Amino acid sequence: MLQALPGFRDFYPGDCARRNHVVETWRSVSRRYGFAEFDGPVLESADLYRKKNEEGAEILEQLYSFTDRGGREVALRPEMTPTLARMVAAREKHYRKPMKWFCVSNFFRHERQQKGRLREFLQFNADIIGESSPQADAEILALAIDLVRAFGFTAEHFVVRLSDRKAWMDFLQSRGCDEAACRLALACADKLEREPEDKLNAKLAPTGLSVSDLKSFIAAGSPEAFGPVLEALAARGLSGFVEPDLSIVRGLAYYTGVVFEIFDRSKNLRALAGGGRYDGLVKGLSDGSADLPAIGFGMGDVVLGHLIDETPAAAEKLRAALASHLDVFVVVADESCRAEALGLVQSFREVGLSADFPLKPAKVGKQFQEAEHLGARHAAIVGQEWPQVKLKHLATRSEETLDHAALAPKLKSQKS
Amino acid sequence: MLQALPGFRDFYPGDCARRNHVVETWRSVSRRYGFAEFDGPVLESADLYRKKNEEGAEILEQLYSFTDRGGREVALRPEMTPTLARMVAAREKHYRKPMKWFCVSNFFRHERQQKGRLREFLQFNADIIGESSPQADAEILALAIDLVRAFGFTAEHFVVRLSDRKAWMDFLQSRGCDEAACRLALACADKLEREPEDKLNAKLAPTGLSVSDLKSFIAAGSPEAFGPVLEALAARGLSGFVEPDLSIVRGLAYYTGVVFEIFDRSKNLRALAGGGRYDGLVKGLSDGSADLPAIGFGMGDVVLGHLIDETPAAAEKLRAALASHLDVFVVVADESCRAEALGLVQSFREVGLSADFPLKPAKVGKQFQEAEHLGARHAAIVGQEWPQVKLKHLATRSEETLDHAALAPKLKSQKS
Repeated sequence: MLQALPGFRDFYPGDCARRNHVVETWRSVSRRYGFAEFDGPVLESADLYRKKNEEGAEILEQLYSFTDRGGREVALRPEMTPTLARMVAAREKHYRKPMKWFCVSNFFRHERQQKGRLREFLQFNADIIGESSPQADAEILALAIDLVRAFGFTAEHFVVRLSDRKAWMDFLQSRGCDEAACRLALACADKLEREPEDKLNAKLAPTGLSVSDLKSFIAAGSPEAFGPVLEALAARGLSGFVEPDLSIVRGLAYYTGVVFEIFDRSKNLRALAGGGRYDGLVKGLSDGSADLPAIGFGMGDVVLGHLIDETPAAAEKLRAALASHLDVFVVVADESCRAEALGLVQSFREVGLSADFPLKPAKVGKQFQEAEHLGARHAAIVGQEWPQVKLKHLATRSEETLDHAALAPKLKSQKS
Repeated sequence: MLQALPGFRDFYPGDCARRNHVVETWRSVSRRYGFAEFDGPVLESADLYRKKNEEGAEILEQLYSFTDRGGREVALRPEMTPTLARMVAAREKHYRKPMKWFCVSNFFRHERQQKGRLREFLQFNADIIGESSPQADAEILALAIDLVRAFGFTAEHFVVRLSDRKAWMDFLQSRGCDEAACRLALACADKLEREPEDKLNAKLAPTGLSVSDLKSFIAAGSPEAFGPVLEALAARGLSGFVEPDLSIVRGLAYYTGVVFEIFDRSKNLRALAGGGRYDGLVKGLSDGSADLPAIGFGMGDVVLGHLIDETPAAAEKLRAALASHLDVFVVVADESCRAEALGLVQSFREVGLSADFPLKPAKVGKQFQEAEHLGARHAAIVGQEWPQVKLKHLATRSEETLDHAALAPKLKSQKS
């Protein structure tokens, strides 16, 4: 029997409700921050990703790319930033700066299967384009923090580790590294916690640097650049969520300033979110026509989902949000009244209430079971008393009898 | 400069808001009807589509299929029904019958470019699985009608053309057609309005039928099977939206009973929606393990969007729904108060209000322009009077001065 491909998910109704809750939470916090939603196509020209990355980059190795029926080299999007940069470059003159944009989209990477990694995943992205000040950096960080808080997490559960790619580049260049050496040194810095020191020292040899050089730079702590960003976060009461940490370098090549990753405090999981400033990317992808500074980040649904499951407060908050319900179940107590029952169902739905009923004849007891199963608040019983209808409140078992035309307005007014 | 691929769409914020409004309208009507949302992966095993269709079927000719990095033959989903049937077959025992499920997903077909057709499009799908009665047919038709009505359309604007694949098969078999001849005759019936009679008669030759045979069958009108469906729609007050019309046959091979398409009354556009009963498909795709009758339909966003644009009442309704707004814009009248302004912005966002502010110093007049541009309801002016803040209602120009801590609770209470 056919199954979903490995690394791809089926969203059965319970899973889909959970996914939609995550998406709607991301959207609602972003709107509070005055971000506007955008989206792009799932399929893009493969050049969009090849142009931006060096050959051999992990993201290209994992690209779902192929030749389409028109002979085009195309790829399933592995990330949003190139699409965003392309869209911004094409139309930036139509928009006031700074542009505060977000999106919630699905992405595709041919990853090895492991915890926290899927081949199709959802990711939230937010970017501020056209503003290079630390105020924009702080606005993006505050949004990232409030997105995580919205799921019920506190400073006990997560931390934003803040670094600065520019501080790294200044340090490496001051030590005589050219572009290739910088890239190599950053790749090694990214692996300090994961690879043995002698192996890294061997890799670092062409740069003239050693692991202890990198470690001393990291230990030197917080670069000056962090001052205004940390102040702007303190003014919002969000200092407790951020820790300067130069060991964060981020994998992608295009970052130019502040970079950050969000981790669970217990460090059990991969990064919840990550991003940074990329002031040259829009210019590069627009062949120089749109020279706009930018900062952005992404947050996936997979690691977030694991952290929710592992954190009782967040798991409970999610469960409460997902409690299913139906406003009213119409019980057809007498099949000769089915037409009347259908009219009543329609009257509920017309005013925006959710209403269901049995599609085939069933005993009244079985219909009540179905109403309970669907989480119905009320049952409306249509039978020989028509045009009178008995309305039962299922939690309290209280009931009253009303004219059928009075039911929809009554339940509607109770709801709003 | 790189662009989106032909037939693929960029959703800039205005387009994205419109898309989201369509999606949310579909969702809200479906929930009123007691349907639960599900979704599947964008990428599936190519066999899922090959198994269900004859070789040479249009949907296979247009399939975005390729070999992935693991050597699997995969395809971007061109429609939802095979995914649904696969998911249902795998877990149907976990769900009470009938299952009323819907989804809103993107699909991919390598179409020739023309009005109403894109290569990536959104489509709503709803299905009732596990119930074969005409009551289920009527429930699906009522949902389809109310989905279109929710955008401001009336019986003046659209009509559901109702047909019956079983009536067609009975007729064709009574005239001696075997399976291949039935398929050929149905393909010709599908083209009666588009191809010349002599060409169709030539194609029909192997079936022993002529165009006039097909036309007489169609003219004979409404099969008995429509009786209970039409009654159940009449009981809901929805008769005026449906017309029996046996000229509708639908392209796909798997339909077994009622089929329908929704058209704009002026017939300027392709079908808005289409679907029908497919009682053998779940069984076929589950190798016989799950034998469940089913009925469903799909509605795309592209033709619907054209009809909205061409119908003033619907276009106006959409415009009103999309009017953008921001609850409050914080004007930083004095840069020395920026930290206080940031704290105020945070206090608005914490209670769920949307709030924005200038990321860099700007003249007060320019900040007010920005507030107007963003559709802000209020401006809160932070300056030397702190902790007092002037709150201005931008539509009426009325203003008052309040302690900063009183602002968020006040605007929050006004909103709810």
